[in-house]
Amino acid sequence: MISRQDLLDCTKRISPYIHRTPILTSRTLNEMTGANLYFKCENFQKMGAFKIRGALNSMMLLSDEQKERGVVTHSSGNFAQAIALAGQQLGIKNKIVMPSNAPQVKKDAVLGYGGEIIECEPTNSARQETANDIVQNEVMTFIHPSNDYDVIVGQGTAGLELLEDKNDLEFLLCPVGGGGLIAGCSAAAHHFGNKCRTIGGEPFEVDDAYRSLQTGKIEFNETSNTIADGLKTHLGDINFPIIQKYVDRIIRVEEIKIVAAMKLIWERLKIIIEPSCAVPFAAVLKEKEFFHGTKIGIVLSGGNVDIDRLPF
Amino acid sequence: MISRQDLLDCTKRISPYIHRTPILTSRTLNEMTGANLYFKCENFQKMGAFKIRGALNSMMLLSDEQKERGVVTHSSGNFAQAIALAGQQLGIKNKIVMPSNAPQVKKDAVLGYGGEIIECEPTNSARQETANDIVQNEVMTFIHPSNDYDVIVGQGTAGLELLEDKNDLEFLLCPVGGGGLIAGCSAAAHHFGNKCRTIGGEPFEVDDAYRSLQTGKIEFNETSNTIADGLKTHLGDINFPIIQKYVDRIIRVEEIKIVAAMKLIWERLKIIIEPSCAVPFAAVLKEKEFFHGTKIGIVLSGGNVDIDRLPF
Repeated sequence: MISRQDLLDCTKRISPYIHRTPILTSRTLNEMTGANLYFKCENFQKMGAFKIRGALNSMMLLSDEQKERGVVTHSSGNFAQAIALAGQQLGIKNKIVMPSNAPQVKKDAVLGYGGEIIECEPTNSARQETANDIVQNEVMTFIHPSNDYDVIVGQGTAGLELLEDKNDLEFLLCPVGGGGLIAGCSAAAHHFGNKCRTIGGEPFEVDDAYRSLQTGKIEFNETSNTIADGLKTHLGDINFPIIQKYVDRIIRVEEIKIVAAMKLIWERLKIIIEPSCAVPFAAVLKEKEFFHGTKIGIVLSGGNVDIDRLPF
Repeated sequence: MISRQDLLDCTKRISPYIHRTPILTSRTLNEMTGANLYFKCENFQKMGAFKIRGALNSMMLLSDEQKERGVVTHSSGNFAQAIALAGQQLGIKNKIVMPSNAPQVKKDAVLGYGGEIIECEPTNSARQETANDIVQNEVMTFIHPSNDYDVIVGQGTAGLELLEDKNDLEFLLCPVGGGGLIAGCSAAAHHFGNKCRTIGGEPFEVDDAYRSLQTGKIEFNETSNTIADGLKTHLGDINFPIIQKYVDRIIRVEEIKIVAAMKLIWERLKIIIEPSCAVPFAAVLKEKEFFHGTKIGIVLSGGNVDIDRLPF
């Protein structure tokens, strides 16, 4: 399990390389929900998402030999950019396995940070096999985007910072995708909150984490028809036990509610967020009575959205 | 002319009612322009734009009798919301003359702040006549959105705050519409800057201020085919002399460049801005050599944009 000291050490380790992101509030959104909302703006984080935290932490904890050989990951999203940027900042070679159909804008972002892209067939198995081959043949270290202890601790520092700035939160809300963010943040809420309960927001369309908490084993999604493209992945054996221990509940929301919540945040906070990070706010809107009058921290996980393809 | 003390007094007067807006920077945008850019985020201001500053200042300086009778303005944009919100904050009755074809979203915003809307035919003369009638019949005070001394001083506090936070700026850039913002900010740069020069950004399509500085008299626009809908208005007899005295030059930009600049700010700063406030950044992109290596403050004037109708 993640210790208090793990989180403190990690914060100290990575903070020279990241932004201390601001916390925004909105009178209108508070009135609309009947609660007091504190939005931790990881959309303003370097490379536009919290993922840089975990990427940095895991890469900084490598042995000198591992750093020399470099790292591999597979991702079509924010973790690809995170590893590329962290590699650039730390001077560690990196290879990013991306599906051949990944959007050019995502590939360009990785290349812009000096990352090397290895294309593969657009299937989960091809991704993992391609990454495995590189690990084998080039003796590089594989870093999983969400199911890696050091990555989880890194992501948890977003929750730690939020609780440092606002120590009387009654709830900490995160979106749930691969589980790295909510696992790390729930540990931070446990160690640094004052009876602060962690709750996840998840689209109905990919409610694997909700079902996993029900059945007690990792569940998968058969389909993934959600606009929250960062939340299509499933939990892993490292983050699931942490989530089981520290996460109170997961609230599921409908697609139409995710789009509406995203639009409200754009219009009222005047900031750009990804669909994925509108999910926890949609959960608050859905369960207003449950949250009535409470102080809620919400991690806005990222802002990398293709503004040529908006849902509104 | 606006004095140093006017600006300081105004800041003290209105600051309890407004946000001290943050200043954002972006490594990527700095690299792209070859300059050091400091964006003053008035899009995060109350009601979503700097206009609340001038509305508050002008209303707070009314006599008790004037406050009792209330105020009138005409605006289809941000100043309508500004007067309505300032009226709500200060407990001053207000009537907003709006053209009958103003978007419902703008009307709703005014109503949401408790403003009273008086509709008129969608012409400039109908607007002014309707406002005049109310002033006459109900003995209310008319406040012009941009050509009013106290409004201009109020808008100038945005520039003052920016220079307080970043006192070595070499340039201060504002969009130019009715001229209230740039007049106030240029006075702030004169009094509080260290040889800081004020430059305006204006669309070619509505380059009345550019031409006014050339000819030495207030010029008008025959057409107004610009996406920068906040910049369609012309200068007035109160702000024009200030602009002539303190503004170094006005840079004109093409429509396509305004949209591109707006998109860059959305994508890189992850914030929502109106087309109007992308104009000064477009001017920097256009004249990279002129600005090379300098420190530039840019007032991002507002974030009230209809996200169902984006230009990209």
